[in-house]
Amino acid sequence: METSQILNSTVQLMHTISDINSAAAILNWDQETYMPSGATATRAEQISTLETLSHQFLTGAEGQAIAGQITGLNGSASKHPLLTLFMHDFERASKLPEDLVRRTSRAQALAQDTWKHARAEKNYAKFLPALAELIELKIEAAERYGYTENRYDALLNLFEPGMTVAQLNPVFANLRTATANILSAIAPNRDKVSDAPMLQQYPKQQQMEFSRYISGQMGFNFDNGRIDLSTHPFCTSFSQYDVRLTTRINENDLHSCLYGVIHETGHGLYEQGFATDLARTFGADGASIGMHESQSLLWETIITRTEEFWSFALPKMREIFGEMVAGFTPRDFYQAVNTIQPSLIRTEADEVTYNMHIILRYELEREMINQTIDLKDIPELWNTKMQENLGVRPAHDGEGCLQDIHWSFGGFGYFPGYTLGKLYAAMEWNVLQQQMPDVRTKIANGDLTPIREWLRENIHKYGRTQKPAEIIQRVAGKPLTETDFVEYATKKALDVYGG
Amino acid sequence: METSQILNSTVQLMHTISDINSAAAILNWDQETYMPSGATATRAEQISTLETLSHQFLTGAEGQAIAGQITGLNGSASKHPLLTLFMHDFERASKLPEDLVRRTSRAQALAQDTWKHARAEKNYAKFLPALAELIELKIEAAERYGYTENRYDALLNLFEPGMTVAQLNPVFANLRTATANILSAIAPNRDKVSDAPMLQQYPKQQQMEFSRYISGQMGFNFDNGRIDLSTHPFCTSFSQYDVRLTTRINENDLHSCLYGVIHETGHGLYEQGFATDLARTFGADGASIGMHESQSLLWETIITRTEEFWSFALPKMREIFGEMVAGFTPRDFYQAVNTIQPSLIRTEADEVTYNMHIILRYELEREMINQTIDLKDIPELWNTKMQENLGVRPAHDGEGCLQDIHWSFGGFGYFPGYTLGKLYAAMEWNVLQQQMPDVRTKIANGDLTPIREWLRENIHKYGRTQKPAEIIQRVAGKPLTETDFVEYATKKALDVYGG
Repeated sequence: METSQILNSTVQLMHTISDINSAAAILNWDQETYMPSGATATRAEQISTLETLSHQFLTGAEGQAIAGQITGLNGSASKHPLLTLFMHDFERASKLPEDLVRRTSRAQALAQDTWKHARAEKNYAKFLPALAELIELKIEAAERYGYTENRYDALLNLFEPGMTVAQLNPVFANLRTATANILSAIAPNRDKVSDAPMLQQYPKQQQMEFSRYISGQMGFNFDNGRIDLSTHPFCTSFSQYDVRLTTRINENDLHSCLYGVIHETGHGLYEQGFATDLARTFGADGASIGMHESQSLLWETIITRTEEFWSFALPKMREIFGEMVAGFTPRDFYQAVNTIQPSLIRTEADEVTYNMHIILRYELEREMINQTIDLKDIPELWNTKMQENLGVRPAHDGEGCLQDIHWSFGGFGYFPGYTLGKLYAAMEWNVLQQQMPDVRTKIANGDLTPIREWLRENIHKYGRTQKPAEIIQRVAGKPLTETDFVEYATKKALDVYGG
Repeated sequence: METSQILNSTVQLMHTISDINSAAAILNWDQETYMPSGATATRAEQISTLETLSHQFLTGAEGQAIAGQITGLNGSASKHPLLTLFMHDFERASKLPEDLVRRTSRAQALAQDTWKHARAEKNYAKFLPALAELIELKIEAAERYGYTENRYDALLNLFEPGMTVAQLNPVFANLRTATANILSAIAPNRDKVSDAPMLQQYPKQQQMEFSRYISGQMGFNFDNGRIDLSTHPFCTSFSQYDVRLTTRINENDLHSCLYGVIHETGHGLYEQGFATDLARTFGADGASIGMHESQSLLWETIITRTEEFWSFALPKMREIFGEMVAGFTPRDFYQAVNTIQPSLIRTEADEVTYNMHIILRYELEREMINQTIDLKDIPELWNTKMQENLGVRPAHDGEGCLQDIHWSFGGFGYFPGYTLGKLYAAMEWNVLQQQMPDVRTKIANGDLTPIREWLRENIHKYGRTQKPAEIIQRVAGKPLTETDFVEYATKKALDVYGG
């Protein structure tokens, strides 16, 4: 059979599977934004049916036939990126028997519910049996996926293709040292910086107006997307032509809405930026969780936390919020959004201490999957590590090991992506500054779309057709390293707190 | 194989198909309410994929195997309502080859677009080729479905199972005469009644507040449903636990929002009222378009246009709208919402002249499907009939034969359901008054949920497991007739206009 025919069948099947996946994503979005409360159980069934269908279409007779044809192609023809992606996803999905997929899916749904109650009751014992079952299922999956060195690698690969424990360990070790150094360096001046400017009573409607304005300025295309409210901010997309962001609003703190929107806009620009010929294929997705996070974090933690950004944003804030921001300078806001303060809750952490939260979770889940720790010791291990790493200790498990939803949905291997995103973002920022020497002037003028264009050209348009390691090597001219982040974070910390 | 096993497989397959159909409905709802404009083309692909899957699951190997097992059952076992429904839908879907389904789907999508432009340009010639293609496809479908007397019956049956031209013709003939009689009777007093009370400038937010209040009073369960805005009001549901209504608001006319919400709430109560064991099966649907319309019209045109309703609603209006309604009596509003005035546009017609719009469309589409008129004569035939029936004549096709979307989406056989809904509703209203003698007192007290309960018990809970003719015979003790409507409409017209 000709390569073009095989490619055509592959793309056709990808269209069907992609449409089913998009439908499931729309059902999820609706559930988080507008769905009435009484629909929860039926919605779970509907989403589960779509997910099962998607898996069946990929691994069933048609998927198998196409995989056979691709395997039969000679070397160069089989290297078309969409054929490579198809084989990757087909092989991965085919490794798990349908029964395991179904059992895992059910266990995850139940565990999320159990976790919600356990967290509310601050009762780890209540979550323990569900966690134990999930770990068992994930170990079975990891064994079926296969790995070379460390069982955890098999799960890490689901979120960060190509990443290994061997590569992560030294990076995270250096990051731990650097974090301690930064905290020591700013310790004498800890009281000199305040986040008070962000903590005024900002009216909700104006918060949204300002956040939308910034999102539009970043280049989010509202003809192909929208912003709604939900309990937790997220970004989802149903094609590059329909990207949905959400945020939440805290009337006494501008952070939540503004940086929620900026973060999700960063993700959204990635989703809107895939090359058009990737639409409805397996290529229309981010390269990895880490690469996706680098797109949100570059905007959220770097670009929009520069003093230049605030010299552009503050006049607009004066227009929208009036008197209440009249007395502040751009530097006041620059400092307010860059305070560093060790704390208990990951999602509220600053960009420096945040990584310690991730390293803690990484170490614990790596050991859980390798069965080298006893699950009942998790709370004590968590609390001890928090004390050692950040000098704070949870008063109960609700603000300790039960704080995150990730384990309950089976996302073992997901957390490292958040810190990888920070490391990639700092590397991208360095290259961007080299290739666009006036980038800080552009930011000060609110001229942000050239940055979006640069990201689109260098990262977004490739979607999932390149692996994260290929992308960062091509863009930065070197492989993943923590040094760019450490230098950037150290320099900013000293600038904000006075060195 | 045991009946229970066959029933179990049937219900399992229904769950899959129902979940796919619900997903498609959610994608449609999203498209009409929140979807960004740039997503139109991709959304069409996604919905089309789901619809194709739904058809394939019903008519494919699994559907065929189940149909074979059901056919093998002896007489009484095979009469389980869900097995009957499965065979009905399986056989109907299997009669159309997949190629015809696909060609029709594509032609309808294109025709809707063509129609939009043709209507805007008031240019029937532009729509004619699309209409001709659709008629050809519908004739092919009708021939494949099969019929006894009239080819149009095959299409009518898609929307009103069991209905025929032979049954409709005399009913519609009597209705035409009765309409003329009512118009003559009120002619001398035409100027004595005004709809001015409804045509004030009612603030949008308060219109929604009032409409939501009435919807809740009718018993709409907001834990299992919600109301949003869209260009055209509609009701859709994704299970009886998730029913979505939409409305639109005209700041200078309370009709649009209020009666939009009441109408769609009537549909929504039907959807929320299906027996719980019908969830995710082919039984969780209305018995027919006519029966569904009877549920919306009973509330919209009868119950909430009684003087008793307005004696309950007016105090609430005074709370919400204040001074602007202070000077009106319940009778003022009762008369305002029951004015009769021949006009050109179906969707704006009163309940008496409305049926003439339907009869006109019915006659034309029946002849189109039977190929007894030339399609190029449609505009002239339309205009002449309007003149004869209602004494008004469209100035152009935009307010004539191009006004409705139905033909462009291939809905030949749909229109009669609107008038059937009025006839069923009047029959239901008569029975309701007999069985609940204090119903008008209840309405005057805003005590509307007993009416919902009566409808749920007599009609809603059966979903689609009984045919409309069975339902109306069981409820009213007689088959479909126009006499209840004619008596009701005549009496009200004389009361409103003075006899």
